[in-house]
Amino acid sequence: MIFRQLFDSVSSTYTYVLASGPGRAAAIIDPVREKMEDYLALFSALDLQLAYALDTHTHADHITGLGALRDVTNCTTLMSEFTKAECVSRRLRDGEQIEFDGLRLTALYTPGHTSESFSYVLGSDTPRAVFTGDALLIRGTGRTDFQGGDPGKSWDSIATKLFALPDETILYPGHDYKGWTSSSIGEEKKANPRIAGKSRQEYIDIMNGLNLPSPKLMDVAIPANLACGRPR
Amino acid sequence: MIFRQLFDSVSSTYTYVLASGPGRAAAIIDPVREKMEDYLALFSALDLQLAYALDTHTHADHITGLGALRDVTNCTTLMSEFTKAECVSRRLRDGEQIEFDGLRLTALYTPGHTSESFSYVLGSDTPRAVFTGDALLIRGTGRTDFQGGDPGKSWDSIATKLFALPDETILYPGHDYKGWTSSSIGEEKKANPRIAGKSRQEYIDIMNGLNLPSPKLMDVAIPANLACGRPR
Repeated sequence: MIFRQLFDSVSSTYTYVLASGPGRAAAIIDPVREKMEDYLALFSALDLQLAYALDTHTHADHITGLGALRDVTNCTTLMSEFTKAECVSRRLRDGEQIEFDGLRLTALYTPGHTSESFSYVLGSDTPRAVFTGDALLIRGTGRTDFQGGDPGKSWDSIATKLFALPDETILYPGHDYKGWTSSSIGEEKKANPRIAGKSRQEYIDIMNGLNLPSPKLMDVAIPANLACGRPR
Repeated sequence: MIFRQLFDSVSSTYTYVLASGPGRAAAIIDPVREKMEDYLALFSALDLQLAYALDTHTHADHITGLGALRDVTNCTTLMSEFTKAECVSRRLRDGEQIEFDGLRLTALYTPGHTSESFSYVLGSDTPRAVFTGDALLIRGTGRTDFQGGDPGKSWDSIATKLFALPDETILYPGHDYKGWTSSSIGEEKKANPRIAGKSRQEYIDIMNGLNLPSPKLMDVAIPANLACGRPR
């Protein structure tokens, strides 16, 4: 299997490329528009045909590569059924699956960071990995103070959906700010300081008290991403 | 199996933690002294006992965590048999193996970036991954202009040793400067612009023409690393 994790240092975003092998159909999760040339070079080197480009949610900190990738590769772009980005090719429902040359991703509705956030679970029968976007980060969670964010829903998505995956499921987040690239569900259950040993109400209080500044690119990125990263 | 790749953004260094599972013996490759607290937190979260700390070579761009990790965890520190760092617990010969709770690393002498550079191959019978330090990077190779560097030896290490591994062996480099986290031997054979389609002499000419500035930390890092990262 081909698995590539790529980091955009400007927005600290992780992008993932998946395929069952060289020469096969591929999927990309959370592509960054400014990294398009890198992705196309990688697809070329591995002789991959991009079948699907997925965003976990409408990003506020970088411009998505979905539209540009569809223009170049003719791939199908996928987002949540609740997204306001009307440009996507197809909207995924909770539990819906996509398959490409023997790999399967299952869409898991995990709202809280935004009202339309999905995670994507890799694996046919046993989950092997989960791509969480901002729903669950390594030793953290995505902020819940804009775009329909809701700390109670964030807790519920983590506690009842993501933590229901097997402990050994590898967690691949949408961001990391200190150089960690992966974790596991079991590790976050035990060591995530916002969740381990906390109640739902304690978590809500933590999230409501964060008082984070707005993402630098927010005013540009959200409108652009509602147009799939392409100028209207 | 537990596999963690950690990035130090100051020196663009990748550090790797390996163990067969939670609660087991672990190895760490190319630890950065400034990230000690992160490593110890990770070992604690996963209940890992650090058995081995390995450097691929005497780094010129960051200070190694080998000495500090040995002080805290009592691990065995390992480097090349040709290192001048007399502080290491044990020096590895070409082909020597270390085992820890079911995982095996094989030391592979791959000089060229420095005269004492080793790569470490993960896998019992079939190689699964190789940690190359600066011997082979994603779409690049480590500079060959100091510490006994030699572009001809670099070519020979890559062409005759690293490229002798199966194409599907995952390449985990010691650095990446544009956010790529892994590649494979087959991918580098095909797409590494310094090597693919080049002759040994063309590679030597490329390396001799790089004219790179010295690493910022070189005058500090090399003496410190010859003392395993600890003040003399």
